Amino acid sequence: MTARPENAHQARLLRLLRDEGPRSRAELGDVVQLSRSKLAQELDRLVETGLIETAGLAASRGGRRSGIVRLSPKLRFVAFDIGATSIDVAVTNGELEILGHVTEACDVRQGATAVLDRALELLGKLRDEGLIPQVHGTGIGVPGPVSFREGMPVVPPIMTGWDRFPVRDAIGQELGCPVLVDNDVNIMALGELHAGLARSVNDFLLVKIGTGIGCGIVVDGTIYRGVSGSAGDIGHIRINDGGPVCACGNAGCLEAYFGGAALTRDALAAARSGRSPYLAELLASGAEITARDVADAAAAGDPEAVRLVREGGRHVGQVLASLVSFFNPGLVIIAGGVAGFGHTLLAEIRSVVYRRSLPLATGNLPIVLSELPGTAGVIGATRLISDHVFSTA
Amino acid sequence: MTARPENAHQARLLRLLRDEGPRSRAELGDVVQLSRSKLAQELDRLVETGLIETAGLAASRGGRRSGIVRLSPKLRFVAFDIGATSIDVAVTNGELEILGHVTEACDVRQGATAVLDRALELLGKLRDEGLIPQVHGTGIGVPGPVSFREGMPVVPPIMTGWDRFPVRDAIGQELGCPVLVDNDVNIMALGELHAGLARSVNDFLLVKIGTGIGCGIVVDGTIYRGVSGSAGDIGHIRINDGGPVCACGNAGCLEAYFGGAALTRDALAAARSGRSPYLAELLASGAEITARDVADAAAAGDPEAVRLVREGGRHVGQVLASLVSFFNPGLVIIAGGVAGFGHTLLAEIRSVVYRRSLPLATGNLPIVLSELPGTAGVIGATRLISDHVFSTA
Repeated sequence: MTARPENAHQARLLRLLRDEGPRSRAELGDVVQLSRSKLAQELDRLVETGLIETAGLAASRGGRRSGIVRLSPKLRFVAFDIGATSIDVAVTNGELEILGHVTEACDVRQGATAVLDRALELLGKLRDEGLIPQVHGTGIGVPGPVSFREGMPVVPPIMTGWDRFPVRDAIGQELGCPVLVDNDVNIMALGELHAGLARSVNDFLLVKIGTGIGCGIVVDGTIYRGVSGSAGDIGHIRINDGGPVCACGNAGCLEAYFGGAALTRDALAAARSGRSPYLAELLASGAEITARDVADAAAAGDPEAVRLVREGGRHVGQVLASLVSFFNPGLVIIAGGVAGFGHTLLAEIRSVVYRRSLPLATGNLPIVLSELPGTAGVIGATRLISDHVFSTA
Repeated sequence: MTARPENAHQARLLRLLRDEGPRSRAELGDVVQLSRSKLAQELDRLVETGLIETAGLAASRGGRRSGIVRLSPKLRFVAFDIGATSIDVAVTNGELEILGHVTEACDVRQGATAVLDRALELLGKLRDEGLIPQVHGTGIGVPGPVSFREGMPVVPPIMTGWDRFPVRDAIGQELGCPVLVDNDVNIMALGELHAGLARSVNDFLLVKIGTGIGCGIVVDGTIYRGVSGSAGDIGHIRINDGGPVCACGNAGCLEAYFGGAALTRDALAAARSGRSPYLAELLASGAEITARDVADAAAAGDPEAVRLVREGGRHVGQVLASLVSFFNPGLVIIAGGVAGFGHTLLAEIRSVVYRRSLPLATGNLPIVLSELPGTAGVIGATRLISDHVFSTA
């Protein structure tokens, strides 16, 4: 059984020690506004439950030296970040610093049982390295719509064999700890909130462009999920009635222009027609053409590849321009497999949003690339579950 | 000086009595989860401050009969709902029931001093009727972007003479009570939350279509304003690069298709060309053609007027479809001067949104016309200020 805080004061102290690291009793007292005796009482209880420990004395602030407290170094949170074509397993301490992290290619369409078994095996490897004395909570991200309340994917388009599979309950039983499941884009947004460029921003958007295109929405420091959990599912916003047909059956969706499949389609056409000498050569060599190759071609100055990236940025920018006018965020972060397109993509997105959105909404709006490629998801997953473990809910 | 609650329990009790009406002590105890003695203590304090009063005994629930408490019948909140072409002044009791309401035509471009003076005169009339022993708080809505923190309009496009006029402080000084100022669309959304179709909905959108087009965003029962207060300003979302030129200087904005000026422009063209016999006759009679005339013409079956309404609905639907996919609201309410277009407009909006938004987001999404035409704004303004007065902030 994972120990939990007994009241809101203890929960607040735990989150503070998680986010800010070890602190003296005097410093904690300044922040939580409890009387000295009440604070001492709450901290004593947290020491008894094993969630925190004392760690020497702080430098004097003029009077008696104040004792330092910190989260127990034995606390461990686990993250499973399941993507369309990859799986990441990581373990962190109580302060959500990554102690171990493994990633490997994995097709989510193998189904829930196979993929989750593999995640547990990878966790076993980290356990064998002695990194995990005990698991205090596990956060899981999956690439599709999730019923957060039920802890399961619901009619996920690209997750064959996962519909209504009880991910939360199955893993909770397996690991004997609290588990929460969320959409992979939402956990990336939480990762940016905890450790990325959004650390000091309460209202922001994270746009993930990869196999699919999705948006994490953070309102007042909390994920906004919408009434049926589909908020941020922007991949099927229609750009143009006459546009290309999308996997969803409609035409002209954003993903039909710039999702993983669309980009591969356009890259292949550019290779076959010879419009892209770089990609044509690659195709002639017998290689399979991927989004990564388009990034490489663009970086090498292949004009058709650059055009594809710019056009993609323009389409993302068109959708984002409306959302920025509507939502007036404090920051927009671009993340996902497109990081390789870098500033060519970013410049195009910025240009469209700054030109088309309301001046009041863009006057002070940074649009940036994620600085946590590869880790936003796992950090966010542990943030999600630690928010829960460090609460009285 | 308006009395205020001393702590969060008292604030909660006051809001409960505002929203649910008189309640027995036993009923209040069930909801707020305080010990009987603690509850009695808080209620006694509220009676002392004059915010609530006792009102006889409730029917027995098996034991001793429980005393009923209610908000003081002397509580009064005032609303100024300033529109582009109208002004509404109302006074409510503590439960936000309208006791008096006057409305008249008024051009907001007369400037802040003239319009606010007129609002105070209208309030004076209500006072002369003996409706206002004392004002406990005033909520004000204005038709433009507002710095909520500063209580003033900021670069409002249609409010000549109002930029950075200190509306909150000026009226606060005049009336000697707490005052809050917000965008007119936000206060309409609060009105729907308090007394309209959104009473039981926590996350919803209110789209107001009138002189301008705006959207109130409610997240978890609270107005979401965005980082610079411009959230919901959807009138300048671009529908089409090649569209008509907008007053904002860009082309193809939603308002350039279906705002007040656009509709008058299209109606006049339809009259001049004779495509609309109804409007042509009106024009020939020397009348000025307004949006109301288009509604009348459509209701009379004039095919060109019906086409204009349908086309407007289609454009609103296009923007709304994206926002519904993004925000996944529990309800969308259509309000504003277009109520006269009724179900022709609503049918077209519904058709586009249901066809183009994500099925998960529309599966259970009602799109409805406001049932509070004429009162959503004033009720919302008093909700805004009573939320403040009934808080410890």
